[in-house]
Amino acid sequence: MPEALTPHHDGSPLHVSTQTPALGETVRVRLRVPESFGSLSWVGTRSNPDREPRFNEAVLLPSTGTAEGWQWWEAAVEVENPVHGYRWLLVGSDGRQHWLNQLGLSSVETRDHDDFRLVAHEPAPDWAASSVMYQVFPDRFAKSRDAPFDELRARGELPEWAIAADWSDPVDPEYPGRSKQLFGGDLDGVREQLDHLASLGVDLLYLTPVFPARSNHRYDATTFDLVDPLLGGDEALVRLVEAAHARGIRVIGDLTSNHSGDAHEWFRAAQAGEEAPEREFYFFRDQADGGGYESWLGVPSLPKFDWSSAELRRRFVEGPDSVVARFLGAPFHLDGWRIDVANMTGRLGSADLNAEVRQTIRRTMLEVKPDTLLLGESTNDAASDFQGDAWHGAMTYTPFTRPLWSWLLEPGSPAGGGLGFALGQVPSFTGGDFLAAHLRFAAGFPWRTRLATMNALDTHDTPRFATHARPGVLPAALGLAVTLPGIPVVWAGDEFGLTGVDGEASRTPMPWGSETSPEVAPVLETYRSLLRLRREHLVLASGGIRWLAVGDDAVAFVRESADESVLVFAARAAATLAFDAASLGVELGEGSAADAAAPLYGTARVAASAGLVTLETNEAGFAAWALPGISAPSWSGESP
Amino acid sequence: MPEALTPHHDGSPLHVSTQTPALGETVRVRLRVPESFGSLSWVGTRSNPDREPRFNEAVLLPSTGTAEGWQWWEAAVEVENPVHGYRWLLVGSDGRQHWLNQLGLSSVETRDHDDFRLVAHEPAPDWAASSVMYQVFPDRFAKSRDAPFDELRARGELPEWAIAADWSDPVDPEYPGRSKQLFGGDLDGVREQLDHLASLGVDLLYLTPVFPARSNHRYDATTFDLVDPLLGGDEALVRLVEAAHARGIRVIGDLTSNHSGDAHEWFRAAQAGEEAPEREFYFFRDQADGGGYESWLGVPSLPKFDWSSAELRRRFVEGPDSVVARFLGAPFHLDGWRIDVANMTGRLGSADLNAEVRQTIRRTMLEVKPDTLLLGESTNDAASDFQGDAWHGAMTYTPFTRPLWSWLLEPGSPAGGGLGFALGQVPSFTGGDFLAAHLRFAAGFPWRTRLATMNALDTHDTPRFATHARPGVLPAALGLAVTLPGIPVVWAGDEFGLTGVDGEASRTPMPWGSETSPEVAPVLETYRSLLRLRREHLVLASGGIRWLAVGDDAVAFVRESADESVLVFAARAAATLAFDAASLGVELGEGSAADAAAPLYGTARVAASAGLVTLETNEAGFAAWALPGISAPSWSGESP
Repeated sequence: MPEALTPHHDGSPLHVSTQTPALGETVRVRLRVPESFGSLSWVGTRSNPDREPRFNEAVLLPSTGTAEGWQWWEAAVEVENPVHGYRWLLVGSDGRQHWLNQLGLSSVETRDHDDFRLVAHEPAPDWAASSVMYQVFPDRFAKSRDAPFDELRARGELPEWAIAADWSDPVDPEYPGRSKQLFGGDLDGVREQLDHLASLGVDLLYLTPVFPARSNHRYDATTFDLVDPLLGGDEALVRLVEAAHARGIRVIGDLTSNHSGDAHEWFRAAQAGEEAPEREFYFFRDQADGGGYESWLGVPSLPKFDWSSAELRRRFVEGPDSVVARFLGAPFHLDGWRIDVANMTGRLGSADLNAEVRQTIRRTMLEVKPDTLLLGESTNDAASDFQGDAWHGAMTYTPFTRPLWSWLLEPGSPAGGGLGFALGQVPSFTGGDFLAAHLRFAAGFPWRTRLATMNALDTHDTPRFATHARPGVLPAALGLAVTLPGIPVVWAGDEFGLTGVDGEASRTPMPWGSETSPEVAPVLETYRSLLRLRREHLVLASGGIRWLAVGDDAVAFVRESADESVLVFAARAAATLAFDAASLGVELGEGSAADAAAPLYGTARVAASAGLVTLETNEAGFAAWALPGISAPSWSGESP
Repeated sequence: MPEALTPHHDGSPLHVSTQTPALGETVRVRLRVPESFGSLSWVGTRSNPDREPRFNEAVLLPSTGTAEGWQWWEAAVEVENPVHGYRWLLVGSDGRQHWLNQLGLSSVETRDHDDFRLVAHEPAPDWAASSVMYQVFPDRFAKSRDAPFDELRARGELPEWAIAADWSDPVDPEYPGRSKQLFGGDLDGVREQLDHLASLGVDLLYLTPVFPARSNHRYDATTFDLVDPLLGGDEALVRLVEAAHARGIRVIGDLTSNHSGDAHEWFRAAQAGEEAPEREFYFFRDQADGGGYESWLGVPSLPKFDWSSAELRRRFVEGPDSVVARFLGAPFHLDGWRIDVANMTGRLGSADLNAEVRQTIRRTMLEVKPDTLLLGESTNDAASDFQGDAWHGAMTYTPFTRPLWSWLLEPGSPAGGGLGFALGQVPSFTGGDFLAAHLRFAAGFPWRTRLATMNALDTHDTPRFATHARPGVLPAALGLAVTLPGIPVVWAGDEFGLTGVDGEASRTPMPWGSETSPEVAPVLETYRSLLRLRREHLVLASGGIRWLAVGDDAVAFVRESADESVLVFAARAAATLAFDAASLGVELGEGSAADAAAPLYGTARVAASAGLVTLETNEAGFAAWALPGISAPSWSGESP
């Protein structure tokens, strides 16, 4: 584990003078060095503009009062490329070199991909990082009083593919039920439950696809021109977004840029004739090569888009008449998109148009509605695509979800499908393994990407976390989702304590009415309290992060800003962690009072004695304490 | 350090069924697992085609006789993208997951950038990896009997910029001598010394630039149309290449794709008028922005190329009439190019045309003379540009030269300029640090890139290694250059024991005639023996590599193939290393005889006893032993 009393830098406002640098701007960056680290003969940054190293010497800032025990160093770094990497170099008086990058300290020179980064591309909306997201799968969330499903079902006019289900029916995880079982949730149903979202503290609603399709998940759109009439059509989406906005809740949609359904009007036209303009939207193979067409993982109902087509770009992603633009504008006013299978988009064999497609999507959004969010699905190592040129954040499972499951599930639990665990096996992690995996993948992202990346315990594609969780670890899991950098995500139903062994089984219709039951009420309360914690402490959205201590069963870190800090302790079992009191950078006071640490959540204890801070819990749980902000030197005035 | 008895894979023919896979081809890859590793419930590969993971289960191959103690597993991997990454996953019967990538084993999931890779781009020429390179800086290598320099000097017709020097004059490392001091070496001089190269075992000559320029280094070309008359002109280059080829020595040139000289005919035309077609070849700034133009690191004599110009591409790098093509064809017949400042080429601010430029260069070479080598200078983390789409190998200092210096120089030695050491300080490494740094940077390359990357102790841009080397470590340093994967490089003069404190001072005129002096003769003999070792054992060019043991003062590894293996031991001081005899994979025999290990070089001792192999030396040095080849399962027959 990293030593707590170690030099520290991250991308937060304590350490970087601007979160939104322009190309060519000189940014001031700061490093904190514990005095115990030893005397230094040189401190500075190493950048790599145009791939040629440049060193900038830092200066020691005048002592800053309560930040005793820490030196602050400052260097000026010009942002010479849109993604400008830098690392710190500290040279001891003994001549030893210490490199500091997003992974931590190294005595051996480091590679570029773990550098800190300044990003001069357009940033995410300023509301992105402080969002609390709620994910809804429309067919399973809520049926409105006048649900189109009921009327059509009564008239025998449901789509031919649909296998109608009652709300209380069990989910059928086997084909054809797996994609065809239709429960009939609709967008007015979502609208009618917005109070529930508001009561949780949610302010960002992510809807999986709402386009007409031939499945319950609607990732096989038949058109992008309208909202599925089964969901209430365009008007229902307009009503939902209006009502959500009235409550301060933003709404993002879900687009499949990798493929459409095989019943999509474009694909139908493409199949109908080789002369059709849509023919070039897909990869049709010559008859000599066996005919057919490329599709998502070989599933014929999901034909893959060929993004070399200019006409496809024009219709789908480019400019104000594109699908991407149309739903952001009137009358829909969506606040952004989550892009499905972003990782595979535009990639096939020797072709890789991914960067062009994602950048075109974002350019269109900036053109028609700049204040919108763009998230990309990339469930494994997402680093190379997420450097800030388009996707603001990732729906990925590598830095958070898989490490979390590996640490907090019962050993030997099956992974189910959808989370991307190798062979469907959840490895059994210590707290140290959790941290190592988290850091390894988080280090690939610029700081701003980390802040806009989804911290999900699970999603509509995965089993539910609660299914095989160790006893009592939900607060630890959700507590980490709300306190680690990233957007916390509630997959609808988790707050009711639902379980599900795979991505299909977890698409349970919401058990409305059970909110006050003895099983559900405490889970709901855990969600409400922890999401409120997140909402009430901005430092959890945008503050820096320093790891303080890690054991097999517990981890501790602090999120930091000049205004306030929050000390976090998450445990999967009874555990004690201790660390040097100086590493906090604030005075806690002595004894069990530790009165500068104001409890925010949980029953764990913090005590300070003889220069050590001790965190202790008798059981699995989560705790957080408010601390005074960090007495950092002001950014006002000239760079020294 | 890595455990010797650990699962192993690398890109060599023992472990991969083809070195030149085609896109779409299914390649067989093999993993060796020591039986002591414990029982396994699953073994296979994890690829990431189009960025979506795919797992392929491996099968255990039937036992293979003398490879006792090792299991061989085989998996089939389809090359779905031109650079197809894969890693191994081993799951123990206890459920533990072990990931194996180019860095070694990890219990935590790994990121993509350290994966093994199959590359479907056109490979390097088949002679690349087995080359022994000799680097010549024409002004300082040798003056022919009828050197143009002498004649012009006598007539007072040397170029105005030149500061004429006699061959025995000291190098003046200060400006203006630093770039203007002219000793008058020429290409006929090089030709007259080809016997020297041949006597060393060299078969690849790398000439730094030969175009007319206004400096002794000629990186500031004034034209790319002809060879500098001071060097003998076009005819001298033709004569040199012919004579070299007659001795089996190939010749590559040096091109500056990042910039030209400010006296280049293109730049002169560009400056003369805004209407000139060459105007777009460079980055001229508006008068409102202060005027002037972009140049290499701000040096005005080296104006930077703007590769968005189609005309620049046409003249310089694209097609059979380009500069790149012209010198590969008749009458010159160069065998390839080393590209100067490849890392910065095409990069400025938000522009990054590097991939397009390098791929265009290579495409042109494939068009006019496929059997040619393309090396790119990128002296730091070169991984991202060197995935096999253009550059065959790197002139870089990160995987080999800087780690080597850090381990083998006297502690506290100054770095001098040019090697890219931070702050000009050479950190002091243990053998473990050397290995960690080497692996970290080598892991970023595909195997084929490693084999074609230059293993240089120093170059024309750096101080000479011998200047501050610990006593007696030259054989260890050169021994590692010839036995680690990569092309060993001799910077002309090193074989005479020359020293030089920086990249200028090391450009010493060659001390011809001193070959038999008591100082020079043993150094020359060391070079001849170690380069011969490399030439005589093909396994050192293309065999696999496994690290066996590492101590502060010594490292040991084995290069492996089915035909032969070579055990390598390099020490900077008296040292003993021991490792499990089973890890060799071949039987050595017992006792100090260890008669299956045939000494190839050095005085160190190898002994096998009680299941341990011990390597021992009383002083700094280098040793190598020939071992029987690895009894690997044959590739013939179907994949199991």
